[in-house]
Amino acid sequence: MKSFEYANPTKIIFGEGAIQKLPRALETCGKNVLLAYGKGAIKKAGIYDTIINMLADAGKTVTELTGIMPNPTAAKVREGVALCKENKVDFILAVGGGSVIDCCKAIAVGSLLEEDFWEVLYTRGELAVKALPIGAVLTMVGTASEMNGFAVITNDDITVKSGFFSPAAYPKFSILDPTYTYSLPKYQMVSGICDILSHLMEAYFSGEDDNVSDDLNEALMKSIIKNARIAVSNPLDYTARSNIMWGATLALNGILGVGKTQDWEVHQIEHQLGAYYDVSHGMGLAAVSASYFRLVFRSGLHKFRQYAVNVWGVETVGKTDEAVALEGISRLEAFFKEIGAATSLRELGIGDQTKLAEIAESTNLLDAGYRQLTSADVKAILEASF
Amino acid sequence: MKSFEYANPTKIIFGEGAIQKLPRALETCGKNVLLAYGKGAIKKAGIYDTIINMLADAGKTVTELTGIMPNPTAAKVREGVALCKENKVDFILAVGGGSVIDCCKAIAVGSLLEEDFWEVLYTRGELAVKALPIGAVLTMVGTASEMNGFAVITNDDITVKSGFFSPAAYPKFSILDPTYTYSLPKYQMVSGICDILSHLMEAYFSGEDDNVSDDLNEALMKSIIKNARIAVSNPLDYTARSNIMWGATLALNGILGVGKTQDWEVHQIEHQLGAYYDVSHGMGLAAVSASYFRLVFRSGLHKFRQYAVNVWGVETVGKTDEAVALEGISRLEAFFKEIGAATSLRELGIGDQTKLAEIAESTNLLDAGYRQLTSADVKAILEASF
Repeated sequence: MKSFEYANPTKIIFGEGAIQKLPRALETCGKNVLLAYGKGAIKKAGIYDTIINMLADAGKTVTELTGIMPNPTAAKVREGVALCKENKVDFILAVGGGSVIDCCKAIAVGSLLEEDFWEVLYTRGELAVKALPIGAVLTMVGTASEMNGFAVITNDDITVKSGFFSPAAYPKFSILDPTYTYSLPKYQMVSGICDILSHLMEAYFSGEDDNVSDDLNEALMKSIIKNARIAVSNPLDYTARSNIMWGATLALNGILGVGKTQDWEVHQIEHQLGAYYDVSHGMGLAAVSASYFRLVFRSGLHKFRQYAVNVWGVETVGKTDEAVALEGISRLEAFFKEIGAATSLRELGIGDQTKLAEIAESTNLLDAGYRQLTSADVKAILEASF
Repeated sequence: MKSFEYANPTKIIFGEGAIQKLPRALETCGKNVLLAYGKGAIKKAGIYDTIINMLADAGKTVTELTGIMPNPTAAKVREGVALCKENKVDFILAVGGGSVIDCCKAIAVGSLLEEDFWEVLYTRGELAVKALPIGAVLTMVGTASEMNGFAVITNDDITVKSGFFSPAAYPKFSILDPTYTYSLPKYQMVSGICDILSHLMEAYFSGEDDNVSDDLNEALMKSIIKNARIAVSNPLDYTARSNIMWGATLALNGILGVGKTQDWEVHQIEHQLGAYYDVSHGMGLAAVSASYFRLVFRSGLHKFRQYAVNVWGVETVGKTDEAVALEGISRLEAFFKEIGAATSLRELGIGDQTKLAEIAESTNLLDAGYRQLTSADVKAILEASF
């Protein structure tokens, strides 16, 4: 096991009706609140009314930031920062999924900077150690942004979608009510499930094997697969929705990634795909995962074999290790198809291959998984995913 | 899944040589330090010298509390409280296993009380919301006290061994170096492993089934069993020691118990056994576990069957559910024997049954597992464990 440091200060408030604990959570938070959300789904669901009344009862002054989009943009972050500075906001309440929370994290950091957040966090790559405090009410699952310090922002000006981490960006609290996910469109639910599995595989497919983190990771992958099948056929199954919601948080709150190098190459490819095309993050991951694994699996053959056997129950008798490993990857792809995820760029609405070389060239490659990728590899992965 | 709240503020610093990060961790801690440890094992291992030099270099004023015993007593806590008050201690550094950390938690809370800690926490059952900050350097594994707010104290005056919880008692940081456990006597290592498995089973054998926490719990039980076998035969296996050390923390830092009622009846019985006899906590748990499970398994038959199959790989063909469940319990018992744990009270050095009725009568029974126990049940469990 690799040496590590782990700390996670977020308080999780989980369960049906958990919103009733928001007033208590707000007691220790600031008075000037930025209430941030997406395109209004929370109004239809009645969540907005509940929260706005609770904020009023708590004597908070509320400024609203609306219309946060699925891949939140640097422009939206700047809009939020301006609102925070103008209204002396001292607490941000993010209501929505990972995109809303991510956007709020960048706003929280940017509001305490004199310079533009992109310049500081991305261009100069500085670590932000200060941020306005954030609370979250989660309505979609997948990113685990509700219990980590990561955020992903898209800068349309330079066609880059990229993440940052700040120890100051962990939400102080996050409210997770599985019933809020009942009314999610199936496409969004499935996209979230692909994102969860991808987070787990990014941690799993890297060195430091024989690791308790991998043992737990396999169990969580199986649990997500099992519960996803239940939730897809019965969206109102509370147990399945609970397991997926909490499983999503566990998949990227850091606890299952400790002691591992981790990979994150699939996320890097998807991020750049997302910078060029407005694709759903989870669907983008699903579309390129199998092609990536088929390109690299020989460099981590033992682990892809273990994955096939332990996660997918692939039989090994009379098969080579390569055949077993490939069958595991095919099972993943078949599962994505089964629950209605995209397994090709074409299904994501990308009509031609003209930009694939450019996307491959601009993907920020890491050196962490079983094999160092080249831009040519990424182009091959994207073409194989087409 | 049951509704829950989860937060854990402890920072874990894990890996070989992790002690080198102690000076950085001390920077934000108080100046007047209580250095607390056991009966001197840390001096033989050289850990004491390293730490005392780091404290001196950091300009700390050090008061020492030595001789903390395996089942720390209320009297020892009072000794520590007196030292803290007298020397205006503002930070406690606990170096040792769970007993040392537990004792320090009670000292940390007691030092900020005007009245005696036992009176406030136990007699009146109040929740302590303030405590001196604690840091821990772990040298033994099992209790997970390094990443939770629990402590167990023995009060010899009234023959009670009992736990308390305080949200203020989580260590600020804990340093976990797996190589520190290389030189542990086998008896202590095995005792720790029994404690870890018991923590997992206490969470597992209770309602709210079909739970992602149970899926992860099974994986962690299997991982602990696998790595325990390696560590018992090769105490210097770094990977096995790492997996056990971090697995122990995960088993009771709360993350795998969320959404579950949990049981804790085995711990209640062992606590009272420990109040009457000076037995090693983990060994005491191992000695009574199988008898307890055999008494209650019919009330949670589906779960004991699942445990037998998923954790121990028991074959089910041609067997009744009861037979499968009982085989799982026997496998647990056989594993305890295999690694050298006690599986009877006699092996713990308890020579006769004269006090068993009194222990049973004074055990603080809960109502959380598959069946409400009576004192008569506890007596039967103790007799069957003899």
